[in-house]
Amino acid sequence: MNISDYMQQVGKQARDASVEIARASSGDKQKALLAIADSLEAASNDIQAANDIDIKNAEAKGLASALVDRLALNAERIAGMIDGVRQIAGLSDPIGAITDLEHRPSGIQVGKMRVPLGVIGIIYESRPAVTADAAALCLKAGNAVILRGGSEAINSNQAIAKCIRQALAQVGLPETAVQVLETTDRAAVGELITQTKYVDVIVPRGGKGLIERISNEARVPVIKHLDGICHTYIDDAADVDKAVKVAVNAKTQRYGTCNTMETLLIAEGIAEQVLPPLVKAYQAAGVELRGCEQTLKLYPDLVAATEEDWGTEYLAPILSVKIVTDMQAAMAHIREYSSQHTDVIVTENWTRAQQFLAEVDSSSVMVNASSRFADGFEYGLGAEIGISTDKIHARGPVGVLGLTSQKYIVLGNGHIRG
Amino acid sequence: MNISDYMQQVGKQARDASVEIARASSGDKQKALLAIADSLEAASNDIQAANDIDIKNAEAKGLASALVDRLALNAERIAGMIDGVRQIAGLSDPIGAITDLEHRPSGIQVGKMRVPLGVIGIIYESRPAVTADAAALCLKAGNAVILRGGSEAINSNQAIAKCIRQALAQVGLPETAVQVLETTDRAAVGELITQTKYVDVIVPRGGKGLIERISNEARVPVIKHLDGICHTYIDDAADVDKAVKVAVNAKTQRYGTCNTMETLLIAEGIAEQVLPPLVKAYQAAGVELRGCEQTLKLYPDLVAATEEDWGTEYLAPILSVKIVTDMQAAMAHIREYSSQHTDVIVTENWTRAQQFLAEVDSSSVMVNASSRFADGFEYGLGAEIGISTDKIHARGPVGVLGLTSQKYIVLGNGHIRG
Repeated sequence: MNISDYMQQVGKQARDASVEIARASSGDKQKALLAIADSLEAASNDIQAANDIDIKNAEAKGLASALVDRLALNAERIAGMIDGVRQIAGLSDPIGAITDLEHRPSGIQVGKMRVPLGVIGIIYESRPAVTADAAALCLKAGNAVILRGGSEAINSNQAIAKCIRQALAQVGLPETAVQVLETTDRAAVGELITQTKYVDVIVPRGGKGLIERISNEARVPVIKHLDGICHTYIDDAADVDKAVKVAVNAKTQRYGTCNTMETLLIAEGIAEQVLPPLVKAYQAAGVELRGCEQTLKLYPDLVAATEEDWGTEYLAPILSVKIVTDMQAAMAHIREYSSQHTDVIVTENWTRAQQFLAEVDSSSVMVNASSRFADGFEYGLGAEIGISTDKIHARGPVGVLGLTSQKYIVLGNGHIRG
Repeated sequence: MNISDYMQQVGKQARDASVEIARASSGDKQKALLAIADSLEAASNDIQAANDIDIKNAEAKGLASALVDRLALNAERIAGMIDGVRQIAGLSDPIGAITDLEHRPSGIQVGKMRVPLGVIGIIYESRPAVTADAAALCLKAGNAVILRGGSEAINSNQAIAKCIRQALAQVGLPETAVQVLETTDRAAVGELITQTKYVDVIVPRGGKGLIERISNEARVPVIKHLDGICHTYIDDAADVDKAVKVAVNAKTQRYGTCNTMETLLIAEGIAEQVLPPLVKAYQAAGVELRGCEQTLKLYPDLVAATEEDWGTEYLAPILSVKIVTDMQAAMAHIREYSSQHTDVIVTENWTRAQQFLAEVDSSSVMVNASSRFADGFEYGLGAEIGISTDKIHARGPVGVLGLTSQKYIVLGNGHIRG
């Protein structure tokens, strides 16, 4: 297969299908999503069998056990995937909504209409459930989608793709509205991210290396996040109990997620009150603490944090701890090291809370809450295609709305410009 | 001067200034804009003198007279520029607005806060008024801005920049919030559009060549429009009088603007009614008509339109005319050739108007109104930094809101994730 020709065909098919999906009624899109869920349910055994092949191949190749775990499906995960598609079916349809329709002095009415983006390209790694999840979100928002999963998941992804195609055909929508690439050739990714004629946006999901490579080479706009270096700042006006609860949860509730705290900043005025219960809780949970100089004065047994620590997303039970003079110093540290994902202040002081909310330039800024809340389900988006730390188009968890745009509509009655 | 070092310094200064401008109060931003207007007014003679030098240099270089005209300032144009800045000062401040703040089942409140993008880079050609206009819009939205005007306008732009710096200093905001590049070296543009660390978005304004080059080479996201190939479709259910009025205005009100109609599509059922008055009006205005085969059967003296005509933005008194079977054929032509800027239907048929509005995938879609309305002032945005035919972030005229983003805010009371 000539990869370039194949990708031209995939791109053109997606563009053509996007026109039909864009004008599909809410009812038809809902029917399609429910049919996809039913089709996945009916084919659960086939999907499991395909996944078993992927797992065998992965183990034979010596893939790391964490990666094998992410790749693996079981009855519970398949049921979860199907449930996710049904939840997306139940979301309200954003397409066609008209807002801000106002009369202008010239006599025309000007408003905005919400429309699909067109064709979304999604590049992801090992989790096969993303195939169903991402396809469902894109369809809900009236988009066609081209999916490129990890090569190790090719059998699982193709089994899921088959169900989606069947369901689309069954409700009379184009099967090519969801295309899962049949090649694992890396050149296909290079083509996909430069097809400005056919693809409107690329969403890469995966490790930092993948996302960096794609951002550097893409000609199509990219919605992405690179890092989750999230901070919690405990202000000297914090409630100690809330501070300890929030800071422990932000680190220990899950270690491998992008909204997990990686650096804890503590105002020096409250350090001696909050550090004892915090150190106790973290050590009980098995979290390695890496402290700044001032922290080490209080806890000489801790590892010393290096400059590198402040810029590291551990994704592991490690936490860097820094004592700062005040909120201004905390915000300066955050400006320097935050990946602009999620940053938190714990304080009872109204004015400082307001200032932190207004000035910290991250996609989510929180007061007195755990950074672990930063995701689409917790925010009520229903599901997310990813989290954006970019400023353009969509910031933070990207749900159905993030996969749409707004065009202007103008209604006249023979109006001309004078 | 080492261009790379210079641009690093400019970028870093802009990033630092952006932090201060982002937190400037509405009152301070308004004061700054009014001070800029006053400063420009006080220095009108200096600006005119600087412009005279640019004009002399341009004429000595043999610049085309149309370009010299765009470059030229006079008392009226300077007053218009100053008035534009005062109008932007009077717009409401979008920054800090909190919307959609809702309680979630977990107990947290989630909402969105409107925030500046950060640093905007604007690359434009000969019109010096853009310097004041773009700077004012960026400041209103809380952004720092780096401006790179055409080399032929360097003296005018520097004279305007001096006024802006003075005004910023006067109100205690950083002068580096608005930097007009002091070099005309092209390498500076290459640096600017790849400074992902310092620049959040690039807005190129100018000819297609400039914009294409910048889009291809930029690593920073770009808000742009390449072409304005705008269509008017006269449906067979159109009111003939409205159709003639709208189609004549869309072509003849101004020829060189991106929202001017370049192709007229006419349903065959109404062609023999609307063409006679239209042809008469266009010929009276000196518009050259290029017709499809069917049009030529009715008007054998017209120039025959070629395939190339359908994809050409004339920016001149030339119009291509095509007779189509119905609205479906018109929409298919628009899908194929439109630059997704502005497309119009003239019809009295409700259902077709609705379908055209919903399905035509352009940044502005209009019913019974002239495409010439597609701009920021007519839409009530107050002013525009440009028009976007992209789908990401901002579509259509981009005003103050298009230079902002929204972050999520989460308000808790010690809430943790379970």
